[in-house]
Amino acid sequence: MSELQSLPEKTVERLSEYRRTLLRCQKQGITHIFSHVLAGIHGLTAVQVRRDLMLIGFSSDTKKGYDVSVLANFISDILDSEAPMNIGVIGMGHLGQAITKYFNGKGLKLKIVASFDVDNQKVGSVIDDIPCYSMEEFTDRVEELDINIVILSCPSSKAEQTVLPIVNAGIKGVLNFTSKPLNFPLGIVVENYDITTLLEKVAYFVKEQEES
Amino acid sequence: MSELQSLPEKTVERLSEYRRTLLRCQKQGITHIFSHVLAGIHGLTAVQVRRDLMLIGFSSDTKKGYDVSVLANFISDILDSEAPMNIGVIGMGHLGQAITKYFNGKGLKLKIVASFDVDNQKVGSVIDDIPCYSMEEFTDRVEELDINIVILSCPSSKAEQTVLPIVNAGIKGVLNFTSKPLNFPLGIVVENYDITTLLEKVAYFVKEQEES
Repeated sequence: MSELQSLPEKTVERLSEYRRTLLRCQKQGITHIFSHVLAGIHGLTAVQVRRDLMLIGFSSDTKKGYDVSVLANFISDILDSEAPMNIGVIGMGHLGQAITKYFNGKGLKLKIVASFDVDNQKVGSVIDDIPCYSMEEFTDRVEELDINIVILSCPSSKAEQTVLPIVNAGIKGVLNFTSKPLNFPLGIVVENYDITTLLEKVAYFVKEQEES
Repeated sequence: MSELQSLPEKTVERLSEYRRTLLRCQKQGITHIFSHVLAGIHGLTAVQVRRDLMLIGFSSDTKKGYDVSVLANFISDILDSEAPMNIGVIGMGHLGQAITKYFNGKGLKLKIVASFDVDNQKVGSVIDDIPCYSMEEFTDRVEELDINIVILSCPSSKAEQTVLPIVNAGIKGVLNFTSKPLNFPLGIVVENYDITTLLEKVAYFVKEQEES
């Protein structure tokens, strides 16, 4: 893939979604799927689906549609790194636990291997099969467990305190669910996903629709 | 605002984020902010910020930068509907509770007024100040409480069962956190936000960065 440029963010998101649908199809014994069916499931046009697949160089459309397994594997080759990436969760409140529970046993290439918290009740325990460590051990555990990515699900008021430990530990990617936008040095991939923003966006388009 | 077209999704997201930063500034007694400072907080260029504000028709840049309160109010006029929008949460597991806790007391125009679950232990109780009702009461409660938007935080396997009740009850917007993409009839705004997608996206760009 080294000759290809990085894909647009939205394409990456859709590829991830297509793959999940393809894997679900596989489980149900569906071997082929037409682009317009795949599109329909995701509320997209068939043209959009075909364009996304063209971007990654996939072109084996048959009379029966796409071969589900072939396409799923093709997308995996694009999205996944060769080695599994290990993930740490910072903040094991409701959100941290929801995320951990959600990922457990999904058999993805992405694996939550540790969580971190400042609450003494949680530190040292195992929550949803994931050991919870103290934030003081963060750097050591990141190295020991080869953690590349962290999910930030701590209270927003604590978010800024995590930046330095994250940078120091050599973390490469951050998925930030707090309402505090965080800046990291170049070279660290950050996605800020604030739930308030998502909800305000839905509300805005609901309002627009009512007014039109 | 009726003369303006709907704003691009990404602009709406950023406006929501700017506003949150502006409100935080207000609390700290900061009265003015330069576009490049606002940009820096959000990891954007000043040009991007100015373009977003131009799109909504805001142009009162002073020598001291933007007036924080004036800009916050201006954005609110764009994003918010006149009446508060009431929200229901379907599924009060960890994710539902994380979301509810997160929103409580934030003083937004968006208000979580009810939650729904199928678990008899939860139904009839009050969780984080929000009453939890049975899914069987969904239509009645939506009408009674004037709920416009639902947050879907139930298990993905149950997501599809919620579509019909949501449509029947006249819900206008859905924020779907399950991993099942859902299709609703035209006229209902849907945002599918699957955490797996977000994480796979971060992982992809981490991989790209390592390879480049």
